Amino acid sequence: MKKVNVVVVGASGAVGQEILNILSERNFPIENLKLCATSRSAGTEIDFQGRKYRVEETTPDSFTGMDIALVAGGKASVEFREAAFARGCIIIDNSSNFRMDPEVPLVVPEVNPEDVKGHKGIIANPNCSTIIMVVALKPIYDAAGIKRVVVSTYQAVSGAGKEGIEELTAQTKAVLEGSEYPPNKFAYPIAFNLIPHIDVFQEMDYTKEEWKMVKETQKILHDSEIKITATTVRVPVYRSHSESINIETKQKLTVEKVKEILSQAPGMIVQDDVQNKNYPMPLFTSGRDEVFVGRIREDNTIEKGLNLWVVGDQIRKGAATNAVQIAELLLQYNCLMEKR
Amino acid sequence: MKKVNVVVVGASGAVGQEILNILSERNFPIENLKLCATSRSAGTEIDFQGRKYRVEETTPDSFTGMDIALVAGGKASVEFREAAFARGCIIIDNSSNFRMDPEVPLVVPEVNPEDVKGHKGIIANPNCSTIIMVVALKPIYDAAGIKRVVVSTYQAVSGAGKEGIEELTAQTKAVLEGSEYPPNKFAYPIAFNLIPHIDVFQEMDYTKEEWKMVKETQKILHDSEIKITATTVRVPVYRSHSESINIETKQKLTVEKVKEILSQAPGMIVQDDVQNKNYPMPLFTSGRDEVFVGRIREDNTIEKGLNLWVVGDQIRKGAATNAVQIAELLLQYNCLMEKR
Repeated sequence: MKKVNVVVVGASGAVGQEILNILSERNFPIENLKLCATSRSAGTEIDFQGRKYRVEETTPDSFTGMDIALVAGGKASVEFREAAFARGCIIIDNSSNFRMDPEVPLVVPEVNPEDVKGHKGIIANPNCSTIIMVVALKPIYDAAGIKRVVVSTYQAVSGAGKEGIEELTAQTKAVLEGSEYPPNKFAYPIAFNLIPHIDVFQEMDYTKEEWKMVKETQKILHDSEIKITATTVRVPVYRSHSESINIETKQKLTVEKVKEILSQAPGMIVQDDVQNKNYPMPLFTSGRDEVFVGRIREDNTIEKGLNLWVVGDQIRKGAATNAVQIAELLLQYNCLMEKR
Repeated sequence: MKKVNVVVVGASGAVGQEILNILSERNFPIENLKLCATSRSAGTEIDFQGRKYRVEETTPDSFTGMDIALVAGGKASVEFREAAFARGCIIIDNSSNFRMDPEVPLVVPEVNPEDVKGHKGIIANPNCSTIIMVVALKPIYDAAGIKRVVVSTYQAVSGAGKEGIEELTAQTKAVLEGSEYPPNKFAYPIAFNLIPHIDVFQEMDYTKEEWKMVKETQKILHDSEIKITATTVRVPVYRSHSESINIETKQKLTVEKVKEILSQAPGMIVQDDVQNKNYPMPLFTSGRDEVFVGRIREDNTIEKGLNLWVVGDQIRKGAATNAVQIAELLLQYNCLMEKR
């Protein structure tokens, strides 16, 4: 396979580091690798496949000679979009900046891989909770159609980056020692608590995180008619988001059929043998690239109802893995840009 | 007010101790108090209002001369039902043994207080998750009717008693120290994890906890037509259960109207000012008797939809407070039995 030049922007953060792990694990065909970050992190050194790389401050020239920029988050995709485009470098953007831009494909490779072909220099990686949900919804959507989804999330602190992880650890220790660790990254203490508030509040008193799950799912499925209502909650778990998903399908599906469909779906693992206490849990799905589904039940309060419990590592499949999979699609479909 | 003789059965457990706290806080009119437990806990001493009480092993004679037995849980209500009845002592039973018995009233004082009047010697206290949900549903039910409820729970470890609390603490310490603390009370580690499994699995692969929320709510509301589907999940929180509740009403209610109705409802506190980050969280509702509700939103995926986030101390309102409130109703309605 042809090797390409890759720049990782935001390489020192939680998602950036995971992107590097995944590029390495998947043997992504890299010719030259460049690591960039904001001036605050520039100068640090990061190991990749046994070689040390110095993190540079991101500038327009960071994209010169590069084929693909994997942007971990933040404002970099806005700041450097034109610079990257002018140099023929495609941005795969993990931030929310361009997700709802009708010109920008929003891609989950298991769901809408072909959408990468329409890119105009930038492809957006969806929100982590959206990715995890839509991987589970797609096979059901294809088999029976989906009318409505009611989802409640249980989201890990690493969704808020390294600082979220550190705050949970330090605060939990403080509680156990009887001392204080005031909240900083989160609005309230997260140790032994739940916070029903992720990202800012928007219209109808839903949070931005909740609206992302609605609007991004509609865009990824190319279906503005699918109805989704979400409640998103931060929980004191380090890693992997969990989701309780209630689905009303258009055609009736038996539980057996749903299990069969999901077992055969790409990127999914069915863990559903309740007599042997087999169901997905965030502690055991972390570090994995698949989305796990269990507690698959008929919801007999409606004619065509289902309940699922879905868990996935939101830093891997919910962010880094999905971004690297998009990069793989770019090579597979041969739709890189001309370097300029 | 007439004073009565009270025996607390299971006095040394988490719920039993909370029953004693609440009897004291509410100045329940006690003439004589007796504390009982299994032989394992008999002999210990417990303080109540400045006096020490020796815990006795429960026997048929524990009920002699008593008006009300508050049974914290376990098999005692089955073992001693006849003995208590023969002596004219009413059992208020926090166990699940008789909840679905059509002869036994299942009571939440804010919802169906009059049901105590039909007792035949025993009144059941509902499941904690059910109580918390139904206190929030009732005012909406009365105002607009309820067609369907989709609920996902976030349940604290103290729902599994003192051992649940100790396991969360010891296991969390172990994780932070890099050592091991194997699960014992729970099927899997609960520290920094979620377990989508509470109580045993039953028909259609729903857990008993999930079925309780369905069937007990129907019984309490005297409405076998109300549709409820539940997913119950254990979370690493010490105390207070949280519930993400999606409701389809029969008549349309605006969010403003729902807030008004819930603000005026007995036993409820509305905490819903998202711009000031005001919403219920388990850390701050623990030790309180009210059920807290926030994140009240229209669900516009259906014509008459609502989302609520409901949190309540499941040891107080979800168990002990509710039981003592039932005892208060017995005095208020003057429906004790003749002592024999």
